[in-house]
Amino acid sequence: MQRRQLIQGAGLGGLAATLAACGAQTQGPAPSAAAGAEQPVRQWKMVTTWPANFPGLGSGAALLGEMITQATGGRIKVKVLGAGELVPAFEVFDAVSRGTAEIGHGAAYYWKGKAEAAPFFCAIPFGLNAQEMNGWLYYGGGLELWRELYAPFNLVPFPAGNTGTQMAGWFNREINSLDDLKGLKMRIPGLGGEVMARVGATPVNLPGGEIFTAMQSGAIDATEWVGPYNDLAFGLHRVAKYCYFPGWHEPGPTLECIFNKEAFESLPDDLKAIVDACCRAVNDAMLAEYTARNQQALEQLKSEFKVDFRPLPEPVLHGLAAATRGLLDEMSSKDPFAAKVYASYSEFQRRAMEWHRISEVAYYASRRALVEL
Amino acid sequence: MQRRQLIQGAGLGGLAATLAACGAQTQGPAPSAAAGAEQPVRQWKMVTTWPANFPGLGSGAALLGEMITQATGGRIKVKVLGAGELVPAFEVFDAVSRGTAEIGHGAAYYWKGKAEAAPFFCAIPFGLNAQEMNGWLYYGGGLELWRELYAPFNLVPFPAGNTGTQMAGWFNREINSLDDLKGLKMRIPGLGGEVMARVGATPVNLPGGEIFTAMQSGAIDATEWVGPYNDLAFGLHRVAKYCYFPGWHEPGPTLECIFNKEAFESLPDDLKAIVDACCRAVNDAMLAEYTARNQQALEQLKSEFKVDFRPLPEPVLHGLAAATRGLLDEMSSKDPFAAKVYASYSEFQRRAMEWHRISEVAYYASRRALVEL
Repeated sequence: MQRRQLIQGAGLGGLAATLAACGAQTQGPAPSAAAGAEQPVRQWKMVTTWPANFPGLGSGAALLGEMITQATGGRIKVKVLGAGELVPAFEVFDAVSRGTAEIGHGAAYYWKGKAEAAPFFCAIPFGLNAQEMNGWLYYGGGLELWRELYAPFNLVPFPAGNTGTQMAGWFNREINSLDDLKGLKMRIPGLGGEVMARVGATPVNLPGGEIFTAMQSGAIDATEWVGPYNDLAFGLHRVAKYCYFPGWHEPGPTLECIFNKEAFESLPDDLKAIVDACCRAVNDAMLAEYTARNQQALEQLKSEFKVDFRPLPEPVLHGLAAATRGLLDEMSSKDPFAAKVYASYSEFQRRAMEWHRISEVAYYASRRALVEL
Repeated sequence: MQRRQLIQGAGLGGLAATLAACGAQTQGPAPSAAAGAEQPVRQWKMVTTWPANFPGLGSGAALLGEMITQATGGRIKVKVLGAGELVPAFEVFDAVSRGTAEIGHGAAYYWKGKAEAAPFFCAIPFGLNAQEMNGWLYYGGGLELWRELYAPFNLVPFPAGNTGTQMAGWFNREINSLDDLKGLKMRIPGLGGEVMARVGATPVNLPGGEIFTAMQSGAIDATEWVGPYNDLAFGLHRVAKYCYFPGWHEPGPTLECIFNKEAFESLPDDLKAIVDACCRAVNDAMLAEYTARNQQALEQLKSEFKVDFRPLPEPVLHGLAAATRGLLDEMSSKDPFAAKVYASYSEFQRRAMEWHRISEVAYYASRRALVEL
């Protein structure tokens, strides 16, 4: 029952369905002969910062739990718990650290209060996009730094998902200059919020589920959330006139899977390798899901709901970039480890911008030739 | 010994090293207690279209073999064979189809002679980039079509790697108009070559290892290969003046892992799930490697070897796009399944271009604000 619910509820159900279909085709040894019948079965809990099965994020966590359970032949049985079921969203880090749960799924930028450098492993305003984050984490030294940062907390982190580039947010006021941001009460968490405060706005942090009501009642003037796929689900087009782009503050946030260190280290080699492969698989799958679903939702928002999508003007972007630089410099000056991470991240980004200028960016531009035929 | 060689030789060695390090930390049950001690051990061969451990491509195949072996606790022991070791590169498809090897790693566009629609599952000129290919394959119906196409050949395909956007190629002549391509003898395989023929060039197909000599002797006038990481390794900057961008013909080729159908279906559920997760993991890892290594190699090519990187002019791109449209229409008109795949692919691309215009493309442009501070 639970497995069926996970698959049906999952936005990432395609993969789970594929796996299930593979199972259905089996003509080899019967499942009772599956691996590790004599091995200990680990009943592990995965606590998450998302509502259970929330499209993309929660369903990504559900998929990860499902994949680990299937690939280990049930030697690790993962029970995925939505925010608030065992612990509130923002206690996931501590709960896994002390072993209340063996696994957590969330986003590193939630933990800046515990470790100043944490946001670098999720999203930095005007920073790396999804493809670049993967390059930095796996082949640019990022993952080693991340593990070093989390080690004192008794945690082993893995990249495990990405939303791709987000939107700047929903507004009822035109944003033509930096002045238009002044005094705006906007739901925008993390470093993005700190940058907004530096240009005169009042950032507010609200859980996703409270955004619609806060916009409707006028408690807040503006909000960001994720992008078309998730924003349409919340109905944000019904409470705001304009959707501005691009998501300068979250260009491709990496989501994390964290393991309690003793729990992870108790695993034999093959189970460690499975856990690593499954995290990478979901890292790949979630971005693919957002890519496909965002473009469908965008079309619906434009054709059915006539949403006005607008670019943030260049002077506004310049002001936000300057405030970002100031914030990052301040973080580095007060925390030596953050300075070390910032140096590694910035060096990777400098080169990534050169490379993507002549590859991805030039390619996107060249493809206009097709439309102009 | 073999495992050590794979890890040392692998461009993707970072992941293998991580896995190995995980093993070193094991404090749980001893490896002898690992999964499936009583299960049959499958000694499986993976034949590939790449030289053994060729950076990125061959090392990606090596990593995949290593991951499957580790994650299955040796219940599947994969032996990876470079092109020509068991079968030549372009016999990989047939060898896996008839069961000479259980697994293959290559690229679908090599098999257009067997199945007209095959290139859609690798790279189409002016088509989907890496992120979009993953969206289409996993959440846009692409993978189902691919499996339908390969089923009569007794093969089950999985996406298993991507190089990201490539370069247009190396030239000793300035390319200022379509006329400059006329009469050019250029090494460019696949659909890109067919498009070049339509604009008056003479495409040639040569294995990678023969490109340098052919350029040096003047047997060919120009060549494409992959991008800075792989092109630097071949020394192409020593035989050509200009490197043009972007790689309009290979915007983000998906590489494939193919399984012999009977072999795959003989696996119990947990091993099927492991194989699926490992293919997805390498799909993620290889693009990350290319992202990181291309940008390093680009810097070296520019600073140390003073390579002149140039954009293809818009009129040239327009001519190539028009020839591409003609080629794709012709493929569709002579093969009903290709027409079906083209319809699915094009519809996905139409939406992807709208979505990436306001997300990835707008974000790349906004990030210039950082540089201009």
